[in-house]
Amino acid sequence: MNSPSLSSGSFTLPGEAGFEKLTLDLAQKWGADTIRDSDGTQLSPEILNAGYDIYSTVCLVRSVQPWARQNRTKLQQNFLMSYPVVADKATVVIELLQGYFREQFAVNTEDNPKTWWQVFDRTTGKEVPKKSWVFNARKGTVTVTGAVAGHKYTVNFLSFRLWEEISMYNHITNNWGDREHLAAVDPMHPETQQVILAFLEQWLRDHPDTSVVRFTSMFYNFSWFWGSDQQTLRDIYSDWGDYAMTVSPRALKRFEKEYGYKLTAEDFVNGGLYNSTHNAPSRRYRDYMDFIHGFVIEFGKKCIDLTHRHGKKAYVFYDDHWIGVEPNSPRFAEFGFDGLIKCVFNAFEVRLCAHAKGVATHELRLHPYLFPTGLKGEPTFKAGGNPTLDAKNFWIDARRGLIRTPIDRIGLGGYLSLVQPFPDFCDYLAGLTQEFRLLKSFHQGDRPYTAPCKVAVLTAWGDLRAWICSGHFTHGVELNEILESLAGLPVNVSFISFDDLVKKGVPKGVKVILNAGRAGSAWSGGHYWQNPKVSEILTRWVQQGGGLLGVGEPSAAATPGSLFRLGHVLGLDRDRGERLANGKFKFTPPAAPAAPHFITADLTTAPDFGKDIDGIYVHGPATTVLAARDNSPQIATHEFGKGRGVYLSGFKFTHENTRLLHRALFWAAAQEAKWTIWNSTNVRTECAYFAKAGKLVVINNAGEPQDTVITLADGKASRKVRVDAHGIVILDV
Amino acid sequence: MNSPSLSSGSFTLPGEAGFEKLTLDLAQKWGADTIRDSDGTQLSPEILNAGYDIYSTVCLVRSVQPWARQNRTKLQQNFLMSYPVVADKATVVIELLQGYFREQFAVNTEDNPKTWWQVFDRTTGKEVPKKSWVFNARKGTVTVTGAVAGHKYTVNFLSFRLWEEISMYNHITNNWGDREHLAAVDPMHPETQQVILAFLEQWLRDHPDTSVVRFTSMFYNFSWFWGSDQQTLRDIYSDWGDYAMTVSPRALKRFEKEYGYKLTAEDFVNGGLYNSTHNAPSRRYRDYMDFIHGFVIEFGKKCIDLTHRHGKKAYVFYDDHWIGVEPNSPRFAEFGFDGLIKCVFNAFEVRLCAHAKGVATHELRLHPYLFPTGLKGEPTFKAGGNPTLDAKNFWIDARRGLIRTPIDRIGLGGYLSLVQPFPDFCDYLAGLTQEFRLLKSFHQGDRPYTAPCKVAVLTAWGDLRAWICSGHFTHGVELNEILESLAGLPVNVSFISFDDLVKKGVPKGVKVILNAGRAGSAWSGGHYWQNPKVSEILTRWVQQGGGLLGVGEPSAAATPGSLFRLGHVLGLDRDRGERLANGKFKFTPPAAPAAPHFITADLTTAPDFGKDIDGIYVHGPATTVLAARDNSPQIATHEFGKGRGVYLSGFKFTHENTRLLHRALFWAAAQEAKWTIWNSTNVRTECAYFAKAGKLVVINNAGEPQDTVITLADGKASRKVRVDAHGIVILDV
Repeated sequence: MNSPSLSSGSFTLPGEAGFEKLTLDLAQKWGADTIRDSDGTQLSPEILNAGYDIYSTVCLVRSVQPWARQNRTKLQQNFLMSYPVVADKATVVIELLQGYFREQFAVNTEDNPKTWWQVFDRTTGKEVPKKSWVFNARKGTVTVTGAVAGHKYTVNFLSFRLWEEISMYNHITNNWGDREHLAAVDPMHPETQQVILAFLEQWLRDHPDTSVVRFTSMFYNFSWFWGSDQQTLRDIYSDWGDYAMTVSPRALKRFEKEYGYKLTAEDFVNGGLYNSTHNAPSRRYRDYMDFIHGFVIEFGKKCIDLTHRHGKKAYVFYDDHWIGVEPNSPRFAEFGFDGLIKCVFNAFEVRLCAHAKGVATHELRLHPYLFPTGLKGEPTFKAGGNPTLDAKNFWIDARRGLIRTPIDRIGLGGYLSLVQPFPDFCDYLAGLTQEFRLLKSFHQGDRPYTAPCKVAVLTAWGDLRAWICSGHFTHGVELNEILESLAGLPVNVSFISFDDLVKKGVPKGVKVILNAGRAGSAWSGGHYWQNPKVSEILTRWVQQGGGLLGVGEPSAAATPGSLFRLGHVLGLDRDRGERLANGKFKFTPPAAPAAPHFITADLTTAPDFGKDIDGIYVHGPATTVLAARDNSPQIATHEFGKGRGVYLSGFKFTHENTRLLHRALFWAAAQEAKWTIWNSTNVRTECAYFAKAGKLVVINNAGEPQDTVITLADGKASRKVRVDAHGIVILDV
Repeated sequence: MNSPSLSSGSFTLPGEAGFEKLTLDLAQKWGADTIRDSDGTQLSPEILNAGYDIYSTVCLVRSVQPWARQNRTKLQQNFLMSYPVVADKATVVIELLQGYFREQFAVNTEDNPKTWWQVFDRTTGKEVPKKSWVFNARKGTVTVTGAVAGHKYTVNFLSFRLWEEISMYNHITNNWGDREHLAAVDPMHPETQQVILAFLEQWLRDHPDTSVVRFTSMFYNFSWFWGSDQQTLRDIYSDWGDYAMTVSPRALKRFEKEYGYKLTAEDFVNGGLYNSTHNAPSRRYRDYMDFIHGFVIEFGKKCIDLTHRHGKKAYVFYDDHWIGVEPNSPRFAEFGFDGLIKCVFNAFEVRLCAHAKGVATHELRLHPYLFPTGLKGEPTFKAGGNPTLDAKNFWIDARRGLIRTPIDRIGLGGYLSLVQPFPDFCDYLAGLTQEFRLLKSFHQGDRPYTAPCKVAVLTAWGDLRAWICSGHFTHGVELNEILESLAGLPVNVSFISFDDLVKKGVPKGVKVILNAGRAGSAWSGGHYWQNPKVSEILTRWVQQGGGLLGVGEPSAAATPGSLFRLGHVLGLDRDRGERLANGKFKFTPPAAPAAPHFITADLTTAPDFGKDIDGIYVHGPATTVLAARDNSPQIATHEFGKGRGVYLSGFKFTHENTRLLHRALFWAAAQEAKWTIWNSTNVRTECAYFAKAGKLVVINNAGEPQDTVITLADGKASRKVRVDAHGIVILDV
């Protein structure tokens, strides 16, 4: 692997002024072609002039600080729901910001509350007439008159945000004391756009050495509402994909003009649930997302064009203010970005990054960041830390995705000086960067082998939220656990929404539909299952030979006597307590770890899916229960028409469960005969075959050495391989 | 306890022809005043003429067998839902009885299917037009034309029942071979009524020695649908309170005339859930119950009047064909019954029996029955059995109810000859019958002390299903577990429905409202909580000083962002997965077994409520979490207005949990100061104080001797007591 072509390129190094020698030495050792600044570091002329490409970060909406504070009415806004107050007489006084962090929020007293706000009687679910409440701007209260004692009232009100959330988080986490609180301006205002463009113009002039502008990101942060008491409730609401923090009267008026109908405060507040990515979205909210996406493209493109006019490239960071950017959207290419940077902990994030079309360069920001402590406060680059082991563990997680999909670049972030006491880390990174370049080279002009069980993941979001369930790994969310498994499997994966399905049916070539999640969630589908066309299409498709893999509460939308709309395909359903008087078909409880079957062949212990779904009952003898707990099936199969259904009661990402999923996909697709083609017997290892180069890549996903046997193209001939801990072996085949 | 007045009376002995000496000896030893026959036994003249009152059992609807078989169209009927069939083309053939036990059911081909049946597209939830399906009587199939491939179809059809369910159960369980299959006739037909009355008239003449006719019971059995394969699914549907087996075209026509609207097959079938007592009933089904109750009274009264005209008393057995009898109904007295007999395993069934008004005599049929084996096939009166220990254990369960409420008589059933090899059983029963008579004597003209925390149990059924959750003890149903605890507590308990509450508010004197059960269940209340008046009334009542004890999913009826309609009273709510993005208030996890509090003072281990409710989150610091598991509160308190809320995540009947419930009621009622009045420190013991007699009854509910201290009327003075295993101590105070 030590060929000269692998020793440099495609790597972004965080430089640090004051450590010029270290910066340039490590740039050499790790083969960097680019040096970047980071939050809290700067690059000195010696670094800037050393012949490397230079990335510089900029966050536009918080970059115009004196102006932001002087133009408070142009700060970003959002709807909040006041905490409910129960009336004990006909007059109720509601303190709007009670419970919320007042350094983040201030009630919007500029725009007429009667136009934009709503007061709800949450006991009846009905809006209180506008004439029955009054806002007191001085006290920050709403008084409801004619209230019904015993009823519960809330106010949906607009608030300005005084403190940009990433600034707030870093400031408070790092005890920055009296350092400035940065506020985020709202580019929906034409004046704000002018101020931002003027700032950017000047900034571009001020950074002549910068070759790539790394936007962090565009304009609107993911939603993050803080509480007043951060010890007991800091995150009142936090969702990586909710557009809540884009709202303003200006946006709502423009929406009405473009879409021909009015949104209400409740469309955003939703009883205090807001529009969490985890829950099945409404049609109205989807329209609003499209609207904001259009606006972010419209103004974002102006910023990118300006950047290009200055001869620089524009990359976007796929986090923080990413709302409205939507790298999976078909419109994403309209921005004209040159690159997309995603910070990754896991394999599914590698796939997410690679999945974005309309951008030439896909770059990963690897972990660990060069910080003294990790995300949970554990030591990293300081005494007690073992950053080399951390790097290895992060790498083997991400690498599962990298062997399946091409990524153009990798890089690090943070304070480079912190690596000095860790020479083994510096050595390991030199090898890691070469390993990355090698894998990248295999993907050039080639694709790794994928098994004949193409899967489409069916969710309420479809491709728009391909490879992600809102933010980093949300453990316990069945689909997120599955995505992490899928991200490293030799399987072609696509993502479709219920709208796609109803419009176009199951895409050609798809062998397995995967539907995984809790009832009501965006992942299972929630209200989308109420459309009978959905189950009709899928039932027909399985009847004709398709495979359905259902996990948790697939196709869940309750009707009397049934929860799963595709229970007939899976041969089972869930009882949430309403079937106490209905008998359950008695199946033979399988012996541990599971009944012998193609799917369970590699299970060595009883299935552990974490907190899985209980109360599952089978319809009859046609359902084969492969594993069960407390008389509730955990793994079951059911032949239906010419097709097949497989049910798993939950999922947790482990090597053994990844293998189980892999086998379940093959079985659902009725492709068991092809199982052994390019397959690795040891569940802690995986392999990828690149046909053009004739290279077989075997990776060890564990921290101990592993032996395995790889079966080759004919599914019979095999190779025995030993792979070091965290290691990789490349075979010529 | 050995006074002469306690040595005889109030006891019903099962006699057995062929064992005349034994019968009369044990009648003497156990102090019987009555001798009965049983299923499978007869009484000989020597017994009949020995001077005892004689009970004879009769089941009218299965008593007219040749006629029943000759008049098949007058057999009882019910709606069944065919098993769903998924269409794979435009024509679907549904075999109606597929999966059902064909010795029990036969499709009704007499009444026009197009008038009475319904075919449903269960994928859309819509009824298939009558013109789109056709019934083939010869094949027992319905063919749907114009079906949509991929949709699921079911037929709601009428079936005659060929085999009366109790006969069927006994026949099959005991392998009765070619013994006659008894069928149940439907007294809704005037001809049937005439046949039944004629039979009864003759039967009464034929039983001159009978003093009490024990009806088993009136006309309609509880619902019990059997499957074709009894190994894997015998009980397709089984509910002790469902009126499903009363339906017929005649009944439906009469209902329409009386109530002014038409019921449909789906009102009974309900997607295959039928109308299980465990689920919140519809208004339409409640109307139908009232209608059948009226009919059962109307014709039942004719049978009872006839019995009276023959100089005999009429008792009714409160099981089997009890549907429409409704001993808790205000109309029950109209029957004119002289006695009510309830077989009991548990304390709540004692309370159930005692609760019925409009009948002079309340009699319990104790366990164990004099059978070789118990209900689960375990040996009782045969080698390997220990019927004395069984009797003791059943007795201490039932006795908890007997010290709180008056019962007039007890008795046994079965084959008396089986007791011969068990002289210790015969001795124990002699003591037991005396103990019963003593307790009965205390209740005469007196009531035991009850604590100042009168509780009303709020369910969809209210008083109609007081002291029961459908049949014998359904373990795991929170309210059933609670009822068993409550049945022995010195607390005044009433039962109210949501209709009662909305009409009349919380009854005067009630200090605590108890709402316990799963979302959607009749016990929690299901759709009744959608009426905002319910939460308005209860919120006001707690604001003004009431106490709410919520268990499991109290007040559950989902709205966006909330599940519990009284979450504000309890200070908490349940997240079923939709609040992933909503932060949860961090409470301090209590140290094991629980945080110190009045309610938890007697807990020695972490709470064990069985399979309890998870995902509970608290609203804020005003909620006090006393015990939690996996960060989900199991016990919590919350002061609200002038009142209090207490939450338990579930409940299981144990001595320790009974104490916890007792304390929770006191705390919710804000009556902690009176806790020690007539209280026993040892949770395995309980006491009852009878003021007029000056008797303090202390019972040991355990199988080992117990020491305890009883505090007296002032809550301070106390008595130390030791009570034998299963024992009782009576103190003069």
